[in-house]
Amino acid sequence: MSANTFGNTFCLTTFGESHGKAIGGVIDGCPAGLHLDYEFIREQLERRRPGQSEITSSRDEKDEVEFLSGIFEDVTTGAPIAFMIKNTDTRSDDYKHLKDVFRPSQADFTWDSKYGFRDWRGGGRASARETLARVVGGAIAQLLLRKSGIKICAFVSQAGWVTLDRPYTEVDLSAVYSNKVRCPDEPTAQKMLTHLLDIRAKGDTTGGVITCVVQGVPVGLGEPVFDKLQADLAKAMLSINAAKGFEYGEGFMSASMMGSEHNDRFTAGAGGAIVTATNHSGGIQGGISTGSDIFFRVAFKPVATLMKGQQTADRNGNDVWLEGKGRHDVCVVPRAVPVVEAMTALVIADHWLRNRSSKI
Amino acid sequence: MSANTFGNTFCLTTFGESHGKAIGGVIDGCPAGLHLDYEFIREQLERRRPGQSEITSSRDEKDEVEFLSGIFEDVTTGAPIAFMIKNTDTRSDDYKHLKDVFRPSQADFTWDSKYGFRDWRGGGRASARETLARVVGGAIAQLLLRKSGIKICAFVSQAGWVTLDRPYTEVDLSAVYSNKVRCPDEPTAQKMLTHLLDIRAKGDTTGGVITCVVQGVPVGLGEPVFDKLQADLAKAMLSINAAKGFEYGEGFMSASMMGSEHNDRFTAGAGGAIVTATNHSGGIQGGISTGSDIFFRVAFKPVATLMKGQQTADRNGNDVWLEGKGRHDVCVVPRAVPVVEAMTALVIADHWLRNRSSKI
Amino acid sequence: MSANTFGNTFCLTTFGESHGKAIGGVIDGCPAGLHLDYEFIREQLERRRPGQSEITSSRDEKDEVEFLSGIFEDVTTGAPIAFMIKNTDTRSDDYKHLKDVFRPSQADFTWDSKYGFRDWRGGGRASARETLARVVGGAIAQLLLRKSGIKICAFVSQAGWVTLDRPYTEVDLSAVYSNKVRCPDEPTAQKMLTHLLDIRAKGDTTGGVITCVVQGVPVGLGEPVFDKLQADLAKAMLSINAAKGFEYGEGFMSASMMGSEHNDRFTAGAGGAIVTATNHSGGIQGGISTGSDIFFRVAFKPVATLMKGQQTADRNGNDVWLEGKGRHDVCVVPRAVPVVEAMTALVIADHWLRNRSSKI
Amino acid sequence: MSANTFGNTFCLTTFGESHGKAIGGVIDGCPAGLHLDYEFIREQLERRRPGQSEITSSRDEKDEVEFLSGIFEDVTTGAPIAFMIKNTDTRSDDYKHLKDVFRPSQADFTWDSKYGFRDWRGGGRASARETLARVVGGAIAQLLLRKSGIKICAFVSQAGWVTLDRPYTEVDLSAVYSNKVRCPDEPTAQKMLTHLLDIRAKGDTTGGVITCVVQGVPVGLGEPVFDKLQADLAKAMLSINAAKGFEYGEGFMSASMMGSEHNDRFTAGAGGAIVTATNHSGGIQGGISTGSDIFFRVAFKPVATLMKGQQTADRNGNDVWLEGKGRHDVCVVPRAVPVVEAMTALVIADHWLRNRSSKI
Repeated sequence: MSANTFGNTFCLTTFGESHGKAIGGVIDGCPAGLHLDYEFIREQLERRRPGQSEITSSRDEKDEVEFLSGIFEDVTTGAPIAFMIKNTDTRSDDYKHLKDVFRPSQADFTWDSKYGFRDWRGGGRASARETLARVVGGAIAQLLLRKSGIKICAFVSQAGWVTLDRPYTEVDLSAVYSNKVRCPDEPTAQKMLTHLLDIRAKGDTTGGVITCVVQGVPVGLGEPVFDKLQADLAKAMLSINAAKGFEYGEGFMSASMMGSEHNDRFTAGAGGAIVTATNHSGGIQGGISTGSDIFFRVAFKPVATLMKGQQTADRNGNDVWLEGKGRHDVCVVPRAVPVVEAMTALVIADHWLRNRSSKI
Repeated sequence: MSANTFGNTFCLTTFGESHGKAIGGVIDGCPAGLHLDYEFIREQLERRRPGQSEITSSRDEKDEVEFLSGIFEDVTTGAPIAFMIKNTDTRSDDYKHLKDVFRPSQADFTWDSKYGFRDWRGGGRASARETLARVVGGAIAQLLLRKSGIKICAFVSQAGWVTLDRPYTEVDLSAVYSNKVRCPDEPTAQKMLTHLLDIRAKGDTTGGVITCVVQGVPVGLGEPVFDKLQADLAKAMLSINAAKGFEYGEGFMSASMMGSEHNDRFTAGAGGAIVTATNHSGGIQGGISTGSDIFFRVAFKPVATLMKGQQTADRNGNDVWLEGKGRHDVCVVPRAVPVVEAMTALVIADHWLRNRSSKI
Repeated sequence: MSANTFGNTFCLTTFGESHGKAIGGVIDGCPAGLHLDYEFIREQLERRRPGQSEITSSRDEKDEVEFLSGIFEDVTTGAPIAFMIKNTDTRSDDYKHLKDVFRPSQADFTWDSKYGFRDWRGGGRASARETLARVVGGAIAQLLLRKSGIKICAFVSQAGWVTLDRPYTEVDLSAVYSNKVRCPDEPTAQKMLTHLLDIRAKGDTTGGVITCVVQGVPVGLGEPVFDKLQADLAKAMLSINAAKGFEYGEGFMSASMMGSEHNDRFTAGAGGAIVTATNHSGGIQGGISTGSDIFFRVAFKPVATLMKGQQTADRNGNDVWLEGKGRHDVCVVPRAVPVVEAMTALVIADHWLRNRSSKI
Repeated sequence: MSANTFGNTFCLTTFGESHGKAIGGVIDGCPAGLHLDYEFIREQLERRRPGQSEITSSRDEKDEVEFLSGIFEDVTTGAPIAFMIKNTDTRSDDYKHLKDVFRPSQADFTWDSKYGFRDWRGGGRASARETLARVVGGAIAQLLLRKSGIKICAFVSQAGWVTLDRPYTEVDLSAVYSNKVRCPDEPTAQKMLTHLLDIRAKGDTTGGVITCVVQGVPVGLGEPVFDKLQADLAKAMLSINAAKGFEYGEGFMSASMMGSEHNDRFTAGAGGAIVTATNHSGGIQGGISTGSDIFFRVAFKPVATLMKGQQTADRNGNDVWLEGKGRHDVCVVPRAVPVVEAMTALVIADHWLRNRSSKI
């Protein structure tokens, strides 16, 4: 019920505001006996950290995670794992002039209306900085899944107008972090970077698409009928700030396909296992994983904070001219890659544990 | 936790298999004092009923809902509302030959693997007939919302290759049910029908897209951070059989838009209320409703059961030729329209009640 | 969240009113592959059925359970198991005069206040007839537990002033159902019966205590810190109509014991397993089962409906003289025995499944 | 689902081990707009702090709570409220010799068995120090309830053999904290103190009973059928370390009462409101509050850690003589009083919010 908790068995609760003392979370339901690879967790955080290139925000924080509980001699104990990342580079005064202004396409107006007021410092709870806690939770979920051979890899497949025009099966997934835009195809990555710098030069922003692939998932994850695997993935993705769409397998394209073209026939695979000959389904049928790769795409809207001026209104309905300013990303997708991976890991880990009760 | 329950405060649990005794559900959390308009509920069920036209399955059932509890003198009492719809036109023998076969892109293989066996009669629990219970639950949610002036309307905006090329604001939403394909634009509806009959003649099937609009939603519905309104809508939609994608507002299009183009500036509206001048956001910002129309699109894959033969495998990995047969829809979207409306109503009603606790 | 659902992994939702169409429930989360022993379920229902002796209500219903879903060839499929028991012997006119009256110590006043009105026929949803659904759900949970050697046995250890003054270890638990009061010690049972008939003759009622023993529970069930095994048992018991108290192990007696007297020291048991030398703890330490017998006691208040007249008020605050009438139990405990067993089974089955996620 | 979370709408998640970095929690679902009285919260913590008298543990920590999120200018924002209390006076070496020993009637054996190992430092997660987080959460719940005139007061009504032999209505509830044993009747308090010092001198420990009273609760709180108010209170109480029993109203005494004696007849009260003439029911009927005082009693077992030696076993089944040592309470009830109040506040606040959805 709690709106800041995600998951049923492997649960992550997050807390914290952009300019509060800390961003953090509590993981409840992580089985005992998992050895924590702190270096892996640190790497995931590093990947979403701002201040890394000319296309991301220059807010500079080390984002060091401090674990408060649930671990004994580097192994999970079955008790809740609490952690926090202190906010250090906060400049709340930068936001004071926004106190009574509703910035376009931000959470200012809706949160203020819902709760009667808002913490206006740096976006408060609505800040994408909250995703730090998701990355930590997701990293631990990934560590759990890796022990079973499940791997998650996301990458940027579209930035603004530039799209990667090859399927994930034809790119080198290990190359995602070899460039700033997180696109594993180097020529496309270069085009994306040029495009983003161009947009940035105009004081504008844009959106993009992230593709995510999950490999090594066993057959059987997902719970009919409401907690279908794709339903929980869709919720996870749409809970990320700025996400506007989700599709898996052939997605929206499937709407205009013929059944004879889209259907994945079964056949005997290696070792006699039943497999699908094709994978238009995206690794999920009837809400349950087929054993093939799960893949999906998530669309993100343009960053709402512009570096050029915009018209909007204050809480009294007066027109306000909002000067462009700040240290914001020109496009959210490069830094959202580890967040997509984290949310995916939370969903898969949760269903991996839930599936332990499917049979007597 | 329970996988067959949807919602947090307004909860629907569904049960039943295609060829079992009944499909039904339990609504828990419906406030006391709601007068039930049985005619409205009956109409919603009628809209998803098969056997209505040449493009839908010929399975013919009256689908009469019987209420078992929670109502006293036609008013909800606050107690759980249980209901069931008996299965009458079941022909299980039609499915006996499928007992050991895994039909392409159906739930046969995954359910069988997950649970160790399956109820193979008519698709069992994985049958779209389960959505009957969602339609009843959603109809009651709609009755609740209507008392607050909230209205939900879905329609077919794409069927196979034929798309409606006008925004929802330019069509007459009251005309949705004036034709068999559930597209409110008559010329487009005709093109869709021709296209579907053509596909049917070839023994094939196709997919489509449903657009849904929610009007009259007050500002403030939705719970940050994981239970954002769009996240719960995405989960609701992707939990519908055959759904492959969800997008709201500008959706995937927003990925290539500029921030200056996509942002919705605020301004003073009628009566001094703060409103957005445009609605690229699709009625939700920061996970919370803005007061503008909420609109989104749901993609559906082609129907997996074909009227022509297909290759697949049985449980031993032997190749099997599956004869085309049965009485199935050529395209799922016309009958999925009331299901999309129902799931939308469940989400909005749930958040409408949850929002009662946002302030002291 | 849903108030009519019990359990986290093995979940029972109940529905129905005393004089509505049916009492029923939905079990969600029962693993696939459990063979249902219908005779066992029928027996459990038979044990709570009224009309069996001079100390119970004469309402006479066959209470036949009809399963609607989730079972295929007598085996659970993993899908929700819905069931219902039709109400047949309802005489709503017997209650018409109570429409505007608040009977003493019944749910009339509080439900009416909470919901604005109430279904006054036979107690509506507040009727103990709702426990029928718990007995069915609990019977299926018991079938699941029996496969792991876990057995549950409850019995009447106090009826009015007559108490069984021997510990459960000194009575023959297989003799519980050999008499009408459900006390396994025949001389005590006779005293109880005489006492109850005496009270009945005076038009009065009384309460009692049920003791419950769970044998064969493995070490490790229960979840710290809020979902301790005893906490979930306490909730389960206090959710039964008329229950007023719960204690496990030495219970309230432990308050005046010395630590040196109450502590259960550990020692090597059969096969080298660690066991406690005594069991003052009642089979649970730190919220988790020790492997010893779990035992607890549940207190029930006197039946509120009297066969003699009582003073009370109507909804306008006018004094009303309530004539004694009806066909009610003189004491609730004999028929509550299977309900206590059922709720215990639900708790243990739920924790038995939850424990599957305790380790990686 | 999450085992370390309590509540449905007003939710508290706790984390932390006795000798870890911190004990803390996250409150999710606290409505926006509540002004936090930090002094009140500090007082509640002070009341459960050890080191205050000769009958409590000498572990001396300041237990200062640090809030990390969810508050803006001292007012709750609707976002999760995270907080922590650093552990400072930890002497883990004191516990090293217990690493492989299972102390009698502690959580050592069961946790070790469940999770495969345990954090043996100071009791780890099973330490009563975890209740610090409950006290903070409960204090905020109390602040919420106080705005509606609901007050909670608990006190010691039994310590070892010494019992307070007057009902709560005949004692001065404001005097609870005027003495070290938290019994509002001074002569009884003195007897309790003498008794406890006597037990302590013998190196032994004992148990006790806490009575709790909730005043000002409106009619209508509580949710049938499983989430009855008393059921949630029972769970809350039995989730407290060392609690062994719960009873409300006449509790176990009601088992031997006659219906005519126990029933609370209704009558017109002040201002024409319907009230009960007596309150044997303990303020709850049919699972829902009547508007009268809610009162209940909670039994606690003797403290398991003795100051004298005890026999037990290690993990290999070898007999071990456990030297008495440490700085522990002779009786848990004095310091458990604010914990009982806190858990009560969590239950009432949760139901107070849930009740907002009872009617349309």
